[in-house]
Amino acid sequence: MDTKKKTDLLLRLKSIAGHIKGVEKMVTDDAYCIDIISQVQAIQAALNKVNGQILDDHLHSCVITAIRGDDATERERMLGELASVFEKSAKL
Amino acid sequence: MDTKKKTDLLLRLKSIAGHIKGVEKMVTDDAYCIDIISQVQAIQAALNKVNGQILDDHLHSCVITAIRGDDATERERMLGELASVFEKSAKL
Amino acid sequence: MDTKKKTDLLLRLKSIAGHIKGVEKMVTDDAYCIDIISQVQAIQAALNKVNGQILDDHLHSCVITAIRGDDATERERMLGELASVFEKSAKL
Amino acid sequence: MDTKKKTDLLLRLKSIAGHIKGVEKMVTDDAYCIDIISQVQAIQAALNKVNGQILDDHLHSCVITAIRGDDATERERMLGELASVFEKSAKL
Repeated sequence: MDTKKKTDLLLRLKSIAGHIKGVEKMVTDDAYCIDIISQVQAIQAALNKVNGQILDDHLHSCVITAIRGDDATERERMLGELASVFEKSAKL
Repeated sequence: MDTKKKTDLLLRLKSIAGHIKGVEKMVTDDAYCIDIISQVQAIQAALNKVNGQILDDHLHSCVITAIRGDDATERERMLGELASVFEKSAKL
Repeated sequence: MDTKKKTDLLLRLKSIAGHIKGVEKMVTDDAYCIDIISQVQAIQAALNKVNGQILDDHLHSCVITAIRGDDATERERMLGELASVFEKSAKL
Repeated sequence: MDTKKKTDLLLRLKSIAGHIKGVEKMVTDDAYCIDIISQVQAIQAALNKVNGQILDDHLHSCVITAIRGDDATERERMLGELASVFEKSAKL
């Protein structure tokens, strides 16, 4: 991952960590349940963006390298991994 | 898609269509709400399997062809599509 | 469920069944994979609306009755069911 | 929320915050993309458990109080909130 992408990703993760701290405070302060749940759902959405960004980078580096390479086993492994990430993300 | 995979996919879709018919009957017969919701969630899980199967086939055909090809625009389009399918499936 | 809501729900389900038929045709006709996946995701979103509508009706009938009733076991069962529907819908 | 539940919830949130720190370190250390994505998905699953626990508590306190109360507007508001939490959690 290039330095710019990495910096961006780390900033997002720091912001998410701050968001979690905020939720801890809400729980400590007896905030209204539904408001806490909404904040947790917002964190989950932010984590989806993190995953989207990592996946995009992965597709443009490792996946391209593997598919262009001569190692059929490695290629299969890579495609299998992608299918499994998709399945996990979609599972009800 | 090869004939075997296509036949398998069509069988799954037929079975899902039958499942939907079953839910219609449950609604008509005033079945218990939570039982209907469970059946609908089972249909959604079955549709996830359909999508997983199609994606797997897609990765092993179009995506490999595009990534190995010389057309950089087509390759970018293909990877962008994959990222967007993932994002849609993961969206909260 | 009152007649109007039931009719509305059955119409939605019929439309979803038609949508599934459309996906079967796409598979038979070798439509582009990503287009098929998008249609399947649209069907899943439509099924979410169906579940939302049924849940809303359930909350306004059975749940109110159970919570107002004197049967503590029945009330617990009902609340446990709600929590489990939520968990299933949210599971990654 | 009683003290025991609150303590338990705060422990979970602390553990999730630690998990996020771990993901930051993976990004800094250039860990393999798919391994990072798996960790992020595990965090999202842990957050689902947090939400499930808060919802369960909410159902057993505020919702019971509102449904048993005489304020029809408040009751409607409460049920509407529940339906909307469900919808957000299920949205594709």
